Amino acid sequence: MISVVILGAGNVAHHLYKAFFSSEKVTVKQWYNRNIKTIEPFKNEVNITDDLSQLTEADIYIIAVSDDAIAGLSKKLPFEKRLVVHTSGSMSPYDIDKKNRRGVFYPLQTFSKSAEVDFSTVPICLETLVRTDYPLLQKLGKAISKNSRRVNSDQRAALHLAAVFVNNFTNQLYRIAHEITESQGAEFDMLKPLILETAAKVQELSPYKAQTGPAKRNDKKTIKKHLKSLENEHHKDIYKLLTTSIKNTHALSYQQSSKNKTNN
Amino acid sequence: MISVVILGAGNVAHHLYKAFFSSEKVTVKQWYNRNIKTIEPFKNEVNITDDLSQLTEADIYIIAVSDDAIAGLSKKLPFEKRLVVHTSGSMSPYDIDKKNRRGVFYPLQTFSKSAEVDFSTVPICLETLVRTDYPLLQKLGKAISKNSRRVNSDQRAALHLAAVFVNNFTNQLYRIAHEITESQGAEFDMLKPLILETAAKVQELSPYKAQTGPAKRNDKKTIKKHLKSLENEHHKDIYKLLTTSIKNTHALSYQQSSKNKTNN
Repeated sequence: MISVVILGAGNVAHHLYKAFFSSEKVTVKQWYNRNIKTIEPFKNEVNITDDLSQLTEADIYIIAVSDDAIAGLSKKLPFEKRLVVHTSGSMSPYDIDKKNRRGVFYPLQTFSKSAEVDFSTVPICLETLVRTDYPLLQKLGKAISKNSRRVNSDQRAALHLAAVFVNNFTNQLYRIAHEITESQGAEFDMLKPLILETAAKVQELSPYKAQTGPAKRNDKKTIKKHLKSLENEHHKDIYKLLTTSIKNTHALSYQQSSKNKTNN
Repeated sequence: MISVVILGAGNVAHHLYKAFFSSEKVTVKQWYNRNIKTIEPFKNEVNITDDLSQLTEADIYIIAVSDDAIAGLSKKLPFEKRLVVHTSGSMSPYDIDKKNRRGVFYPLQTFSKSAEVDFSTVPICLETLVRTDYPLLQKLGKAISKNSRRVNSDQRAALHLAAVFVNNFTNQLYRIAHEITESQGAEFDMLKPLILETAAKVQELSPYKAQTGPAKRNDKKTIKKHLKSLENEHHKDIYKLLTTSIKNTHALSYQQSSKNKTNN
């Protein structure tokens, strides 16, 4: 049984708490938050506190607070030489105060208050500064996910950046699609199966192979039609830039097909 | 029982053929393609032909060929006053030769050769130039999908354009994420659950409400870090443009939060 203390009460902390609470291999010995009100609903399940001097002993301390608050909170911890990890994609384990043993426990998923998360499929990126700490952190990862693995800081930074593209930026494309459909009295709902299928397709195929559409075909007529119908200049810029990006990615086959055309 | 003839043998034609073939309410009387080889594997199931003069009588003729070929093929049809529809998102029903009754049967989904499609969830956009033709086309839509509805040409054009954003452009963001992770020896596979969850989230929440991340929070430190680590200038441009787009979308709450900060 691994004992943990959770520090913080944002979305990640809440979802981690639930996952640990449901696991037979983990005990949440305590949950700390600066503002105790947020975690009061859980006081019958777990020891809660808003007082760092009251922190209890545990195998692993999990700092699940905003990036900017990690260093400060880790400095205030009233103990040393224990294993302390944060849950951030972009911060270094060195951002944790060096009086403790340090590591990272970064779940690569989007968490919101309302949506339930099946943690067993969430990839968890694990890192410890000292090799001998790794097996314990790995055990914690395996206790809640089938998909935890060692990821160094450079790899984690790349994953965090890539996550912005596939999550935040993709979601903004959905938003623009929402604006485009609504502006013509069409229903955004009609795009939902396509949105799901687009995500499902790259679970099997590479994004390179999954690509279709006017930019990949270099279908100038349709591209021109689309650009003409886009009223928002900003949307037009995004259309142009991503069309060029697709053309660059598929440049070889595109050059070949225009070469063929010239030969005809 | 509605009888149809399919013209063309691309991805859409293949998937439509399968869906019609499985429906008890539809008979595929004939399948035409210029190159008969493509449809020869189906010759034991359906009458096939490569000769337009041999086209049989049917309730609806479905032209599922590339946009540029629709007008020409429709001109060559050796009959008149029958119901002829195309399956294109961006072409008008007027692109079909006027000797026949005209309409559109546009399935809004991404089709590839390999992937199976559950047609019952595919939205189908229906349009007929003459009102009295609509009930028959509607019946055909309902025979294969729970999700068919009347969509005029302006709405269909908006959906087709929006589909480029949620499908082709989103897929290109996946591709860029692939490049970013591989460049650091990280695994693109680790992003796959996030890709699915991002698509799943907007099935319930609006994209506006589903948004999270550094651009929405206006987290300048992380944005700066990300821009610094992007080596590809083109990826940098996409990062900047989509970050600005998210900021614009969430401008009100952003202005309010910076106002609050100033007041503190």
